[in-house]
Amino acid sequence: MTAKRPVTPLLDTVDTPTDLRQLEPAQLRQLSDELRSEMIDAVGSTGGHLGSGLGVVELTVALHYVFNTPDDRLIWDVGHQAYPHKILTGRRDRIRTLRQGGGLSGFTKRSESEYDPFGAAHSSTSISAGLGFAIANKLNDQPGKAIAVIGDGAMSAGMAYEAMNNAEQAGNRLVVILNDNDMSIAPPVGGLSAYLARMVSSSEYLGLRSLASKVAGKISRRIHNSLHKAEEYTRGMAMGGTLFEELGFYYVGPIDGHNLDHLLPVLENVRDSEQGPILVHVVTTKGKGYDPAENSADKYHGVPKFDVITGEKAKSKAGPPAYQNVFGETLAKLADTDKRICAITAAMPSGTGVDKFAKAHPERAFDVGIAEQHGVTFAAGLAAQGMRPFAAIYSTFLQRAYDQVVHDVAIQNLPVRFAIDRAGLVGADGATHAGSFDVTYLASLPNFVVMAAADEAELAHMTYTAAEHDEGPIAFRYPRGNGVGVEIPETLQKLEIGKGRVVRGDPAGGKVAILSLGARLEEAKKAADQLEAKGLATTVADMRFVKPLDEELIRKLAATHDVLVTVEEAAIGGLGAHVLTMASDEGITDGGLKIRTMRLPDLFIDHDDPAKQYDLAGLNAPQIVDTVLSALRHNSAGVEEARA
Amino acid sequence: MTAKRPVTPLLDTVDTPTDLRQLEPAQLRQLSDELRSEMIDAVGSTGGHLGSGLGVVELTVALHYVFNTPDDRLIWDVGHQAYPHKILTGRRDRIRTLRQGGGLSGFTKRSESEYDPFGAAHSSTSISAGLGFAIANKLNDQPGKAIAVIGDGAMSAGMAYEAMNNAEQAGNRLVVILNDNDMSIAPPVGGLSAYLARMVSSSEYLGLRSLASKVAGKISRRIHNSLHKAEEYTRGMAMGGTLFEELGFYYVGPIDGHNLDHLLPVLENVRDSEQGPILVHVVTTKGKGYDPAENSADKYHGVPKFDVITGEKAKSKAGPPAYQNVFGETLAKLADTDKRICAITAAMPSGTGVDKFAKAHPERAFDVGIAEQHGVTFAAGLAAQGMRPFAAIYSTFLQRAYDQVVHDVAIQNLPVRFAIDRAGLVGADGATHAGSFDVTYLASLPNFVVMAAADEAELAHMTYTAAEHDEGPIAFRYPRGNGVGVEIPETLQKLEIGKGRVVRGDPAGGKVAILSLGARLEEAKKAADQLEAKGLATTVADMRFVKPLDEELIRKLAATHDVLVTVEEAAIGGLGAHVLTMASDEGITDGGLKIRTMRLPDLFIDHDDPAKQYDLAGLNAPQIVDTVLSALRHNSAGVEEARA
Repeated sequence: MTAKRPVTPLLDTVDTPTDLRQLEPAQLRQLSDELRSEMIDAVGSTGGHLGSGLGVVELTVALHYVFNTPDDRLIWDVGHQAYPHKILTGRRDRIRTLRQGGGLSGFTKRSESEYDPFGAAHSSTSISAGLGFAIANKLNDQPGKAIAVIGDGAMSAGMAYEAMNNAEQAGNRLVVILNDNDMSIAPPVGGLSAYLARMVSSSEYLGLRSLASKVAGKISRRIHNSLHKAEEYTRGMAMGGTLFEELGFYYVGPIDGHNLDHLLPVLENVRDSEQGPILVHVVTTKGKGYDPAENSADKYHGVPKFDVITGEKAKSKAGPPAYQNVFGETLAKLADTDKRICAITAAMPSGTGVDKFAKAHPERAFDVGIAEQHGVTFAAGLAAQGMRPFAAIYSTFLQRAYDQVVHDVAIQNLPVRFAIDRAGLVGADGATHAGSFDVTYLASLPNFVVMAAADEAELAHMTYTAAEHDEGPIAFRYPRGNGVGVEIPETLQKLEIGKGRVVRGDPAGGKVAILSLGARLEEAKKAADQLEAKGLATTVADMRFVKPLDEELIRKLAATHDVLVTVEEAAIGGLGAHVLTMASDEGITDGGLKIRTMRLPDLFIDHDDPAKQYDLAGLNAPQIVDTVLSALRHNSAGVEEARA
Repeated sequence: MTAKRPVTPLLDTVDTPTDLRQLEPAQLRQLSDELRSEMIDAVGSTGGHLGSGLGVVELTVALHYVFNTPDDRLIWDVGHQAYPHKILTGRRDRIRTLRQGGGLSGFTKRSESEYDPFGAAHSSTSISAGLGFAIANKLNDQPGKAIAVIGDGAMSAGMAYEAMNNAEQAGNRLVVILNDNDMSIAPPVGGLSAYLARMVSSSEYLGLRSLASKVAGKISRRIHNSLHKAEEYTRGMAMGGTLFEELGFYYVGPIDGHNLDHLLPVLENVRDSEQGPILVHVVTTKGKGYDPAENSADKYHGVPKFDVITGEKAKSKAGPPAYQNVFGETLAKLADTDKRICAITAAMPSGTGVDKFAKAHPERAFDVGIAEQHGVTFAAGLAAQGMRPFAAIYSTFLQRAYDQVVHDVAIQNLPVRFAIDRAGLVGADGATHAGSFDVTYLASLPNFVVMAAADEAELAHMTYTAAEHDEGPIAFRYPRGNGVGVEIPETLQKLEIGKGRVVRGDPAGGKVAILSLGARLEEAKKAADQLEAKGLATTVADMRFVKPLDEELIRKLAATHDVLVTVEEAAIGGLGAHVLTMASDEGITDGGLKIRTMRLPDLFIDHDDPAKQYDLAGLNAPQIVDTVLSALRHNSAGVEEARA
C-alpha cells in the first residue's frame, strides 16, 4: 500500500507546526504541494470532504507558519476543510482513518487535538467562538490571538453577522480570514455573495505580485501611526470591504490564497498589527490543484473513495432510491398540478432533493443560503399568503430555526410543511450531524403534526399528505441514505392525520406489541420474526404520527397485549414519552401493563457505520427482542425474574 | 371615565385606514397629535409598551395613508410599537383592554385583525415574513407590497441580515422601513449601531425641510430612467447606506420620522418606484411627544399604569425581590471573589438582572445585542478558554440559540451556565413570551444538567451550584416575577447534582407523593394540605433536577406510595416524561403503580393574569388535588370508579 503513496520528503519532516516553523519561507511551496498530494491520496482511500481542503492548503501552511498555534487559537469554520490542518498537527498517521469508526472525525474536534480549540461542523460559529477566546485572553491579560477562518457561504448566516457586529471589542486579538471561494456546497446566493464578487472582480490582485508587498508595507507603517492615521491607510489599501468596515473591522484584501508570497507578508503584518479586529479577504479555488475536482461542478465537495489518477469515484451499489430524491421528485410531481407548492432549502439543494424540484419549477424553488432562520419565517410568510411551502431542512440544521418554528409557525398555526431529512443517526458525519432531537422539540409544540416515514413509499405518501394539510404546521422526518426497496405507488394516499397502521400480527390480541415510529420498522419486523419463533405472538404497528398520537390504536393494543414496546430513532421525549404520558394520563398502566420505550441513548454517538451506530444505540432487532424478553420476565412486583 | 379622555374630534372620524385616506394631507398633523394623546391615555390606564408606540405615531399615520393596507401588508417587527396601528385599524374601542385577559394582545396578532398580516413579539422576523408575502404575490402575479417596519435594535439580529441578504428577488414589492431610534430596550450595541449613528450624525436632515422634497423629486425622476441611472440617483441621494446597498437594497434616508412633510412624499415615491427593494432609514425619538417618557432613561419602554398628567407610575406592591434581581445580585457577589465569572445578555440587561452584575463587574458583562446565537457560542468560547460564563437568556428567546446550545455547548460538553428567566407562563406578554419548552428541549440533550428553582433561595443556591459546575453545561430556570418571600441565606449551598429534596411528609411512606419541579412547589404544598385534610398522607418532593433525575428518590417514593404525581410549568417532554421513562425502563410501573404527570397543556395560552393562566393550564392546587383523587379512584382494571 505504502508503495503507492506520494513521495513527500519535506512533509515527512513535519509532524507539528513547531517543525513547520523551522522551515524557510522558500520551502513552503514544496511543502504545500506535498501536503496537497498527501491529502488527495488519503481522501482517495477514505472518501470524505476534498474540495474545501484542497482550497486551503497554502492558507493552512501559512497560518500555522505565521501564528503561534496552538496558543494562538486557529478555528476552522465548519471544519470539513481541516484535513490539511490535521495532517500538519500530529494526526498524519491517522489521516487514512478519516470518518471511519474509531478514526479521525471529518471535522475539527476538541478531544482530538489541542490544535482544535473549538469543534465545528455546523457553519458560521467560528467568529463567535474566536471572540470568546480573544475576550477571555484579554480579561486574563494573557497573550494569544484567535483566528477564525470562515467561508463566504458561511458568511451568509445570521450568526456570523451577529458575531461581526460584536467583534470590535476584541481589538487585535481577533483575526477573521474570509475564505472566499465563491462556493460553499452549492453556489452561494444573495446580496453578500454579489458584493464579494464585485470586490474581487474590481480588484487587480490576480498576478499582481507587488500588491501584497505594498499592502504589507502599508500595514507595517501604519502600526507606528495614530489610530486615525491607521484607519486611513487601511481604507486606502482596501479594494472594497466597506461592509466589513462599517461593522468595525479593518479590511485587508482581496488576496490570492494560493500565493504564499502574498499570504505570508500580509499575515505577518496582520499578526503584528496593533489595530484590530482585522478581516483578511482571501480568494481561493475550491478543489485547487486536482484537476478532476477543479473541473467538477461540486468541486468534489464530499466524495466517496476515488482513483487518484483518474479521479473516478467508487460507484455506490445500485439499489433503492435515496430518501432525499424520493422527496424531491414526489414534490416536483405534485407541483405540476398544484401551483401553490414551493420548496425552500438552506444551501443544501442536492442534499435535500430540492434540486429535483428546482429543475421542474425553478420559480418556486428558493435556496436562501445558510439561513435556516430566514428560510422558516420566509416559508411562514408564503403560507400566510396562501402558498403551500415546504421547508426542506436536515433535522440537525432545523435546530438553527427553532425559535422561528415556534414563534412564527406554531403559534400562528401556519401551514408550513417541514421535510426533515437526516433523521436519526447519520454515519460518517457523526454526532454533529445526527438528527436526534427533532421529534422531541417538535412534538412538544401545540398545533404541530409530526410524522416519521418508515420507508420510501411512506415518505411519498407523507409528502402528499403534507401538501394537502392546510390546517396548520406539519413535519415529516426520514433518514439519511437509501430506502428499503418498496415500490412507490403511482397514486399517493392522503394519510389520515393521527392514525397509525398495523403492519403485522393480530391487533385483536397477542403477547407483544411493537410500536415503531420511522425507519426502525424493518428492525421491528425482524424482531417480531424472532419473537414469533419463540412462540410469542407479536403485533407490529407503524405509528406514522407521534403528534397527534393514535390514542385509539394504543388503547386497543394495550388492552390486548402484555407488553408494549416503542421504538424510534429519536432522543428521549419522542414517541415513547408521548405514549407513556397518554397511558398514564388515562390510567392505562395502572393495571400493570408493561410498557418499554426504546430510543436514542443519552450520549452523543461518534461517526461510524450506521448499523454499528444503531447497535451502540441499542435500536437493532436483537436489542428489541432483548427488551421484550426482559419485560416479560419482570414480575408484577417490578423485579426481574431469573432467566428461564 | 370618558370625561377625562382626550378630545379627539378628527380621530373620532377615523375607524379604519379607509377613513384615514379620505383626509387631506394637511389634516394628518392634527390626527397624529390626537392619536398620540389617545395612546398615552390608553396606556396610562392599562400599562404596557409606551415609548416605542409614541415614536412611530407619524410613521403609522403616513404608512396607512400612503399604502393600501390591508392589501399591502404592513408588518411591524416585534409588534409592541403597534398600539397606534391598532387604534387606526378598527380596534380603538378595545384599546383599553390591552394585555388584559380577553383583551387585545400587546403585540400584532393575525387572529385580531386583517391589518395584522403577521404576528410578532420576538424581534427581527419582519423582513423574512414580508419577503414571503412579496414573493407569493409575485408568483401569483397579484398586486400588493409588503412593508416591514424594523427597529435598529432588531437589525442587530442575524435573522434580519439573512433576510436582507435574500431580499433582492422581491424587487419593488418589498419596502423595509428602518426605524432608527438609537435604542431598542437598552441602548444598542455593536458595529451596526455605530454605523447608523455615523450616518445620522453626518447628515443634515434635521430641520432641512427641503431635503425630503429634493429626495422625493429625485426618486420621481429616476423611475422614468434606466436602471443604471436610477441607481446613480439613489446613491447620490443617500447620505450613507452602503451597507444596505451592498446587500442589494436601494437606500433612502435618513429622514425625520416625525415630520409628515418629509415622510409623505418620500413614502409616496417609494410606493411608486419601479425599483426595489428599498430601505427607508427613518429617524425617530422613542417616547416622542410625552415629556415623562422622553426624559426617562428607558423612554417608558414598558410601563405599569401611570398618571397621564404627571407621568407618575403606579407603584408595585413592596414584596419579595424579583427573581431576575436575585440572580443578578447573587452572580455579582460570587464574581467578587471569582474572576472567571462572566455574564452575557442579549439586549436584556435589566430584564435578566445582568445590569446588577454589570454595575459591579462591567468588564465581565457582555450585552451582545439581539443576538442569542452569537451570545451562546461566544459563551462557549469563553468556557473553552477557562472562564465561567453565564448566558442569561429568557426561556423563549433561548429558542433562538438552540442549535448553538446543542452543537457548540452540549456536544463539546463545555461548561456554559444558562440562567433561564421567564420559565413557565408569563402573564401579560402572552403565548409568544411563555417559557414553555426549555425543559423539554434541554433535558433531551446528553451532557446537560437541568435544574429549576422552586423559590428565590433555591435560585441563589442554583446560581452558586452552576458557577462551581465545571464538568459540562448546566441550566437553571426560574419564573417571571417576584419570589415567594423566603430568606436568601448568606452562605450558599452547592447542591448535589441530580439530587432532589423532600420538603414535607414522610418519604418512608404515605399515600400520595407529589414530585414538583420549579415554582409550582407552592401549589404542590397547598395541594398537600388539602389532601392531608382528607386523610391522605402526602409527601412533597422538590426534584430540583430534571436531568440527571434523582432516580434513587423516585424509586423510594414509588415503593412507598400509591400514587406519584409530577408537577411542572413546562410542556410535555419534561419532568413527567423523564420520570415515566425511567419508571418504565426499570419496570417500576409493572406492578400497577399509579403515576400521573401534570404539565402545560397542548395549547398556546393567551395573555392574562398568571394565576388565571395556570388555572387554564390546570396547574394550580385544586387541580393537583383533583388529579390525585381521580388517580386514587382508578381501579386496577384502569377504569375510574364512581366518586365516593
